[in-house]
Amino acid sequence: MSQPTGACPHAWRHQQQHRGRMWATSRAFRRQLVLLRSLLPSPPSPPPYSFPSVAGRFFAPSCSSPSSTPSGSIRASHAMAGSAVYEADAEAVVRRITPPLDRSRHKGQAGKIAVIGGCREYTGAPYFAAISALKVGADLSHVFCTKDAATVIKSYSPELIVHPILEESYSVRDDERASVSSKILTEVAKWLERFDCIVVGPGLGRDSFLLDCVSNIMKHARQANIPTVVDGVPVEVFFPLSFYLSNPFAILTPNVYEYKRLVQKVLNCDVNEETAAEQLTLLCQKIGGVTIMRKGKADVISDGKTVTQVSTFGSPRRCGGQGDILSGSVAVFTSWARHFIMSNEEPKEKRVNPMTLGCIAGSLLLRKAASLAFEKSKRSTVTTDIIEFLGKSLEDICPAEH
Amino acid sequence: MSQPTGACPHAWRHQQQHRGRMWATSRAFRRQLVLLRSLLPSPPSPPPYSFPSVAGRFFAPSCSSPSSTPSGSIRASHAMAGSAVYEADAEAVVRRITPPLDRSRHKGQAGKIAVIGGCREYTGAPYFAAISALKVGADLSHVFCTKDAATVIKSYSPELIVHPILEESYSVRDDERASVSSKILTEVAKWLERFDCIVVGPGLGRDSFLLDCVSNIMKHARQANIPTVVDGVPVEVFFPLSFYLSNPFAILTPNVYEYKRLVQKVLNCDVNEETAAEQLTLLCQKIGGVTIMRKGKADVISDGKTVTQVSTFGSPRRCGGQGDILSGSVAVFTSWARHFIMSNEEPKEKRVNPMTLGCIAGSLLLRKAASLAFEKSKRSTVTTDIIEFLGKSLEDICPAEH
Repeated sequence: MSQPTGACPHAWRHQQQHRGRMWATSRAFRRQLVLLRSLLPSPPSPPPYSFPSVAGRFFAPSCSSPSSTPSGSIRASHAMAGSAVYEADAEAVVRRITPPLDRSRHKGQAGKIAVIGGCREYTGAPYFAAISALKVGADLSHVFCTKDAATVIKSYSPELIVHPILEESYSVRDDERASVSSKILTEVAKWLERFDCIVVGPGLGRDSFLLDCVSNIMKHARQANIPTVVDGVPVEVFFPLSFYLSNPFAILTPNVYEYKRLVQKVLNCDVNEETAAEQLTLLCQKIGGVTIMRKGKADVISDGKTVTQVSTFGSPRRCGGQGDILSGSVAVFTSWARHFIMSNEEPKEKRVNPMTLGCIAGSLLLRKAASLAFEKSKRSTVTTDIIEFLGKSLEDICPAEH
Repeated sequence: MSQPTGACPHAWRHQQQHRGRMWATSRAFRRQLVLLRSLLPSPPSPPPYSFPSVAGRFFAPSCSSPSSTPSGSIRASHAMAGSAVYEADAEAVVRRITPPLDRSRHKGQAGKIAVIGGCREYTGAPYFAAISALKVGADLSHVFCTKDAATVIKSYSPELIVHPILEESYSVRDDERASVSSKILTEVAKWLERFDCIVVGPGLGRDSFLLDCVSNIMKHARQANIPTVVDGVPVEVFFPLSFYLSNPFAILTPNVYEYKRLVQKVLNCDVNEETAAEQLTLLCQKIGGVTIMRKGKADVISDGKTVTQVSTFGSPRRCGGQGDILSGSVAVFTSWARHFIMSNEEPKEKRVNPMTLGCIAGSLLLRKAASLAFEKSKRSTVTTDIIEFLGKSLEDICPAEH
């Protein structure tokens, strides 16, 4: 799949696009679609409108969601015209993967999440991600951050378990770097296998020593097969790692600018909206089979096999911190989706990628919560207001009594 | 414009007053008034009362605002009797410059604000300014403060991005001053151009080293044409800088005492209420064309060309911190006003000063929010209560659906 040295970039891109289209009509692609559909209950009634192509539809659109109106879904499809991207029935996904609240369950069974992030400058982002995980329904939420950040993050909430383990360059002598880095990895590694999913990136900053340490932690998480949501980490940090190791346990959640850089770095070309789905699929394949959620007006999700999107309208307020809510929520839903898929005891080749389901559910929940928060607080909506509506949003979709 | 050495102060003042009156009747002044009026929609009905002179009116008074009753406006005008100061139709300004919440917008487009302030003693003021910016509707709000202040300000709210970059004298050896000062400027400068507007001053204190550093930051902001709200900074810090450089991007927000010192320092005379508007106009002209909002019972605003005021009644409660809300709000409205003016593509000579519009809007919003907070909390009203009403106040004037 790598670009031949000296080959004409245009020809190469054309070839890749052709392969993308081939893939979109391939037997393997269609099997994935059937599997995804079979995961979900049948829609209550036939959809009152038609998609351009049924083959590309992952999930029947939800009739209950005001944002999934025919025009809404069709508009979303048009946004990715020419590519096989269809709206997920995200509410059905949430309902299906959210575990029932069984009285016999004990602490930790609804999910143990950790956020690796938080430095001298940034403390809000890791807090938002970690507290969102709890508000969605995880039982335990940890934060691994620098000493400077730890006191502040602890002060935001007594609900979080905060480990002041990481270090930045300014606090480490040059001759101590190797030993400190190794010590940090040992400390974090002791905990890693307890977690169902980790989120790497919120509030990590750009300190080179810290990023080196985090790169080692990501490598360790990969070796231990721990699902990892990578949010806001510079492409240079995770790219070599993910490139050399097949990594179906990673989810990248790039925003507009990060996605642009990722495409440039990995595919050696610019983002092409006309072949956006094929480009996204290729990107996932080239980075070791990771799942990518390309954030934007619609969140477009691919694992290199399927491409789907969530375009439920959230809020016109674009205050910073919403990406952190998303990463924390995706971490919880991914761990629930994995558990759901495993416990259904389907043969391995028939299993749907839980990373995709986690992204779909997380995306929908953020959008619902942002919508409710905006309804209440309008222009003065801030991230904390949105977090306060995560619980109600989930309850609306999937009441805890069910 | 400088006072001739040895000239009789009285004669000089008389001459300046004469020039002020000349200016108030000049063609340039009248053109600015026409431009300001043309920016706004026509009033729904003719005002039920007359101003002493139509030529001096900037905006048609809003009939919908209970505080803009004829008596209120006339009283405000009488307060500045003998000068060309009239009440702004501040609600119309807010409605006009507040951007619609377009669904296609992404993070940062509604404004990125930074507050430079916060030291060992003062942490509330920069927090109030920065959080107010978010509550008015900015997408991102940063604080640059000393290390001691940073932990506390961070702990007030995870919504803010707080940079512990500044230093005070006690933490810097004499022989390190130059290098530390230079390092601080480099650190802050890396960020400055990302901001739509900065607020310098809240909680800055009086440490000489810190003020030197801030003076350098202000100089840098001026060179980079970044709009700067200067609030509570001693006149000695910014005066030489602004005096030597033409600075149409600065807004000063002096209270009664600060204004008195400013007039003494710049005009070498005392505040004269009988010629207050001319004095304010002259002051703006002498300090490089800055915009000044003279805070008081009415907030009187001039950019050296026009003089207008906002006298909507706020609250009788004078708890500390309201000036910080004002500076944060003015920063957001100024960046919105700049965007509004730029996107209207008027020829440069026809453009209205966005600094003036930002001041008018910020003044009104604080007054509305203070009024609502007082209605709820009466004597126990504190600054945080007022901040909680910024959103509702803006929504009342300018519903987010518009």
